[in-house]
Amino acid sequence: MSGDLERLSLNQITTKSWTLPEAVDGCARWGLGWIGLWRDQVAAVGLDEAVGLLRRAGLAVSSLCRGGFFPSTDAGERDARAADNRRAIDEAAALGARVLVMVCGGIAGGGLDRSRGMVAEGIAELAPYAGERGVTLAIEPLHPMFCADRSVIVTLAQALDLAEQFPAGQVGVVVDTFHVWWDPTVEEQIARAGGRIAAFQVCDWLDPLPDVLLGRGMMGDGPIDFRRLRRAVDRAGYRGPIEVEIFNADVWASPGGEVLDRLVAAYRRHVLD
Amino acid sequence: MSGDLERLSLNQITTKSWTLPEAVDGCARWGLGWIGLWRDQVAAVGLDEAVGLLRRAGLAVSSLCRGGFFPSTDAGERDARAADNRRAIDEAAALGARVLVMVCGGIAGGGLDRSRGMVAEGIAELAPYAGERGVTLAIEPLHPMFCADRSVIVTLAQALDLAEQFPAGQVGVVVDTFHVWWDPTVEEQIARAGGRIAAFQVCDWLDPLPDVLLGRGMMGDGPIDFRRLRRAVDRAGYRGPIEVEIFNADVWASPGGEVLDRLVAAYRRHVLD
Repeated sequence: MSGDLERLSLNQITTKSWTLPEAVDGCARWGLGWIGLWRDQVAAVGLDEAVGLLRRAGLAVSSLCRGGFFPSTDAGERDARAADNRRAIDEAAALGARVLVMVCGGIAGGGLDRSRGMVAEGIAELAPYAGERGVTLAIEPLHPMFCADRSVIVTLAQALDLAEQFPAGQVGVVVDTFHVWWDPTVEEQIARAGGRIAAFQVCDWLDPLPDVLLGRGMMGDGPIDFRRLRRAVDRAGYRGPIEVEIFNADVWASPGGEVLDRLVAAYRRHVLD
Repeated sequence: MSGDLERLSLNQITTKSWTLPEAVDGCARWGLGWIGLWRDQVAAVGLDEAVGLLRRAGLAVSSLCRGGFFPSTDAGERDARAADNRRAIDEAAALGARVLVMVCGGIAGGGLDRSRGMVAEGIAELAPYAGERGVTLAIEPLHPMFCADRSVIVTLAQALDLAEQFPAGQVGVVVDTFHVWWDPTVEEQIARAGGRIAAFQVCDWLDPLPDVLLGRGMMGDGPIDFRRLRRAVDRAGYRGPIEVEIFNADVWASPGGEVLDRLVAAYRRHVLD
């Protein structure tokens, strides 16, 4: 890979039209050493085949998306989700992914506080299992606009309050620029996070926001100061991959090669020094 | 007015199809003693006529919306906005509104930090003028999804950090359930706010969110625990009106009388003890 791209990782959702083999091939051709995987795409080719593909390409896995979705008022449902989360950890371990991204889930019946409690209980139950397999549960605070339906964990401070209850080898956090850029305390919390930063993801915020889920843009297409956040993460001691993860209908409709061209250029221009 | 509705205020945007005279008449007929006004609606009937209408109806003004929108890289534009903000304060004073709601504005060229600095400078310039006229500038932290385009002030903690630099008679904060409900520190910040709470506004969060701007619902139509937030505001010492402010296309398309029927019922059921 090119020297200045050594930390760049393609989260495969960004090239949504590509299958896993196509994305792996794309990373190789564009000189990337890292890929972020999604479980459904791994399942589509089969776990063993995915492991082989990655090994043959010499590609490392920056993260596996995703576990989580803990809140439910139904005990049977909670057990089923816990079992699925353990499978996600096993898959991450098999793929050599040291990071499982946790999207913790929205509000279940019983309300916001009870749901936050169920997230804490779910993480506590899962953390030792993850740590024993060399996988870190990376709690991703989502933007507060997802509080109701996707993640009752909405700030880096809150994610760290939770993560710090466990050994750093078991539970960390994701810093995703789209989710945290607005936070007046973001640099303070990144500094606090230190070794808890398990993943760093980048994409821009589109203004006006075309859609709550798909309002993410290529770096430089919105107001986020990536260099500043990247430097903060660097200062905190994070040395791992920088994953580009973009949910955007236009990007998804573009050929994967064009997306990678834009992505590499935007990364060099807006993220690197 | 009915005893249990003594704190209820109709923010007139909620009955958007009504003119100011119709909204004033609606408040009288439904037994409300308070109304929250918008400057464009006041201007439509004329300030003097609005003052007369309110006096004849015996209706008090809970707040005037809105001043703010400080960030701009153009000095002339900033001066023009400052002049308009002084006019808004004069209008609030004439209307007997002790509270001018401040929507502080989004990101101007120069970025997020510089824009936040321009908000602080704008408030500092305006605060004495407001205080001298008996009007409190009520900084409204908006939901972080509005950070780019409407308000770089996005949390109650941040709004209080700013407000506390001024005398309490000059600068306070708005607690609007829609904007702050997701915040894990909301009750702590409400307690901290104490006498700085200049206005309390309620409406629900719709899940899924149909639209960033219009995704607000009648109390009870979403996940917000109003009683809990109202009790926190009460504990902080706030004794003022409780304004219902709903941006919602369906509500706006309904006849004003139906909206008031629903609003009074939802207030009794979800906000009061």
